[in-house]
Amino acid sequence: MSPRTAIDAEGAWFEPDRIAELRRHLPIPYIDVVPVRTDVDGTVAQVGLLLRASGTGRIVRTIVSGRVLIHETLREAIARHIDKDLGSMALPRIPASPVPFTVAEYFPTPGQSLFTDPRQHAISLAYLVPVDGEASPQEDALELNWYDVAELLESGVMDELEGGHDIVVRRALAHAGVI
Amino acid sequence: MSPRTAIDAEGAWFEPDRIAELRRHLPIPYIDVVPVRTDVDGTVAQVGLLLRASGTGRIVRTIVSGRVLIHETLREAIARHIDKDLGSMALPRIPASPVPFTVAEYFPTPGQSLFTDPRQHAISLAYLVPVDGEASPQEDALELNWYDVAELLESGVMDELEGGHDIVVRRALAHAGVI
Amino acid sequence: MSPRTAIDAEGAWFEPDRIAELRRHLPIPYIDVVPVRTDVDGTVAQVGLLLRASGTGRIVRTIVSGRVLIHETLREAIARHIDKDLGSMALPRIPASPVPFTVAEYFPTPGQSLFTDPRQHAISLAYLVPVDGEASPQEDALELNWYDVAELLESGVMDELEGGHDIVVRRALAHAGVI
Amino acid sequence: MSPRTAIDAEGAWFEPDRIAELRRHLPIPYIDVVPVRTDVDGTVAQVGLLLRASGTGRIVRTIVSGRVLIHETLREAIARHIDKDLGSMALPRIPASPVPFTVAEYFPTPGQSLFTDPRQHAISLAYLVPVDGEASPQEDALELNWYDVAELLESGVMDELEGGHDIVVRRALAHAGVI
Repeated sequence: MSPRTAIDAEGAWFEPDRIAELRRHLPIPYIDVVPVRTDVDGTVAQVGLLLRASGTGRIVRTIVSGRVLIHETLREAIARHIDKDLGSMALPRIPASPVPFTVAEYFPTPGQSLFTDPRQHAISLAYLVPVDGEASPQEDALELNWYDVAELLESGVMDELEGGHDIVVRRALAHAGVI
Repeated sequence: MSPRTAIDAEGAWFEPDRIAELRRHLPIPYIDVVPVRTDVDGTVAQVGLLLRASGTGRIVRTIVSGRVLIHETLREAIARHIDKDLGSMALPRIPASPVPFTVAEYFPTPGQSLFTDPRQHAISLAYLVPVDGEASPQEDALELNWYDVAELLESGVMDELEGGHDIVVRRALAHAGVI
Repeated sequence: MSPRTAIDAEGAWFEPDRIAELRRHLPIPYIDVVPVRTDVDGTVAQVGLLLRASGTGRIVRTIVSGRVLIHETLREAIARHIDKDLGSMALPRIPASPVPFTVAEYFPTPGQSLFTDPRQHAISLAYLVPVDGEASPQEDALELNWYDVAELLESGVMDELEGGHDIVVRRALAHAGVI
Repeated sequence: MSPRTAIDAEGAWFEPDRIAELRRHLPIPYIDVVPVRTDVDGTVAQVGLLLRASGTGRIVRTIVSGRVLIHETLREAIARHIDKDLGSMALPRIPASPVPFTVAEYFPTPGQSLFTDPRQHAISLAYLVPVDGEASPQEDALELNWYDVAELLESGVMDELEGGHDIVVRRALAHAGVI
């Protein structure tokens, strides 16, 4: 999640200097997506997490997450980031409502909230998105794994999420009524 | 929506006298479902309304609505009522979260709330449910019609909904961000 | 939470036989309230839990919880149960919206959901209610204790909640953005 | 709501050129607040609307609305804008949850969404905030008026709200269960 990765991820729309400048002046609007697979009755059964190289060379787990671009709707941003991370064969059911299940406020300084992002102050609207098709890791992602809810919570996988993404996942599962 | 219709709709699990007795003593847990069709980006595009004969012989428009039975989960109740009203070829996407977009409190006496049901005090959890398959009216329903959101609001169709179902539909559309 | 306690708590409106009969036939509409104290900026700071004798003579921790009566609005039920459990000097800020933060489905048989109530199938709408005044334990409650959020989660207090009330509290805190 | 007004309202933290530059590159995070007075049982009884001179010299009605600043939490932004618009004697009950009742996406070009703001693409998290104290109009506001819900909807006052603020108010009232 280095500045460089972020810029690449957005399609190099900004020069690195430009986005660094913007980040000094404004909170950056974000969306966080927790991809899930559901049972036929709608119950969340599995959570999808990506494994990717961070900007600093470490391997980290992440949810789908990224900026909302200028003139882009939230729905477009959700669809674009899912497409970018899970591929065009993923069939996301983007929520009918724009109301997020939580809002995660990421600050550069740890401790100002439960969420940190060393690059920026981001305000992220978080959505639970059932995915029906064949999702596969894209670009800089190494793996996409689906975890049964119980397995996810009992394993150490949640600890591999950074910056508070584990809390976003927990809130998604609490909202969905499975924890 | 006579007692008789309601009992039939529930599969005659109760004798008419028995349910009348229960209704004198307890609020009845209900679910209301607003069936919708969505665009690929999740935006609500159309609302599905049923036309059916009421217990008193009048023709009324309704949403999908019915009791939660003893030992039945909310998800089971939602699926059962959609199946009963829209048929087994309807492919509902039952919400991942049990949180309703509103709670409608129906009272027998008009004026105690915005919702009335002459038969009973019902507490209804209302859900917006996108339907993908081929829905068709079942049993005592005469028609199922899908209305574009703008068309629905401009026509007189909303006035044909009774007991406050028009308010349930409006709240669903407000929650979905389309009005 | 024996039948007897429940009946007393409702003001003996029903004979024990009658409510047992009703419980065999219908899910019982309930409200669960997680009483909290908030900072001036609205952040949840403390959670209030009651200590009371259960119907079987054990001492248990509980949140505020109880039935919705026939012809009673949800707001009236919330106010009545808070008044009954926390006293008339408690100044609850009953939520402006009827939308609960979660719906807890209690079944008599453990395992059908995360929530159990040996007495009945209850469908409980759960609300987070900030309390401003001087709350004090009433009637059969032995104590009312306010716990800082971090303290609550680190202590063993959460384990003293039964039937899934700990999950209701966790979902309330997740919804409030503090865990 | 000219650029100049906006800058003044934010305490002149930016030069006009700078904020115009930022607005060309990023969606601007906003909060919208619908101030309400509630009955003792929490029911929304009245809505507070401001009358102010717009940047172009016209008189317009508005809700409380403004930017989230860099390094500012949503709670701080809500409190700051209420304080700025309703005065320090207003006692807002800032919601316990960060989840907005809706998200309004304002675009400069009419028609891209239900919300327009000629100055910018703003993503606004909307909150319903009960106000207890003595609110009074501040700075460039001419009046603060409280309207009973029924009166508000029947009068022409809703038509004096611009850019979709009337829709924000309607969604607030729908969420609160009063329309």
